[in-house]
Amino acid sequence: MRLDHIGVVVGDLGASGKYYQDLWGVHEFSPTIDEPQQKVKIMFARMRESLSPAIELIQPIDENSAVYNFLKKTGGGLHHICYEVDDLDKSIEHFKRQKALVIGNIYPGAGHQGRRVIWFYTRLKELIELIER
Amino acid sequence: MRLDHIGVVVGDLGASGKYYQDLWGVHEFSPTIDEPQQKVKIMFARMRESLSPAIELIQPIDENSAVYNFLKKTGGGLHHICYEVDDLDKSIEHFKRQKALVIGNIYPGAGHQGRRVIWFYTRLKELIELIER
Repeated sequence: MRLDHIGVVVGDLGASGKYYQDLWGVHEFSPTIDEPQQKVKIMFARMRESLSPAIELIQPIDENSAVYNFLKKTGGGLHHICYEVDDLDKSIEHFKRQKALVIGNIYPGAGHQGRRVIWFYTRLKELIELIER
Repeated sequence: MRLDHIGVVVGDLGASGKYYQDLWGVHEFSPTIDEPQQKVKIMFARMRESLSPAIELIQPIDENSAVYNFLKKTGGGLHHICYEVDDLDKSIEHFKRQKALVIGNIYPGAGHQGRRVIWFYTRLKELIELIER
């Protein structure tokens, strides 16, 4: 298991990416990626020469977006943690046994080369994304 | 710069640590550490055989705690990201120039061997802790 990225919800992907670069100055940015499954567009900021997880900036594209309410309620900010796991089906079984709440179904993550993705909400109120290696 | 840990606010450090272990099963836990500066007690969960950042579980000790309102309002969850930097004074100057909001003063972090710590709130509404290497 590996901590892949931390998701941060923002109102404007372009302005936020610019601010991120000005503030930290040590990142490389992915192109903008459309994730129609979640109705968001995303961009990854990775620290150069670092094994640190990426930061994923996430902008809702409309009111039906998975993060629209989060943005409206909080103004944005830290949203989720994503881990990469070896066997998604095995992880899902285990998470369910531990009473984590599954959100939706498995889908091919547009931001992860189509690898299988699922979402959970833990009893510590963390929103967790799992992607299969 | 290195992503050191992700902070998660919880209501009960003991029960949350137990749940974390049951859910993930791959962590080693630090002893409980009192952080009087923030009026919290904390515990670090680090993935064994991994370079991933630690998860810091944080419980307020009373109503004057820095995270008491967060816990009351949200029920807990993702709270902050902590980066280790080489030169804290230089980072503070840069963050201020970039209009990040400094919260409080530098203090010796009880969870970080007394190394110097400061907090910021960025324009992307991320709460950021910086510790000096």
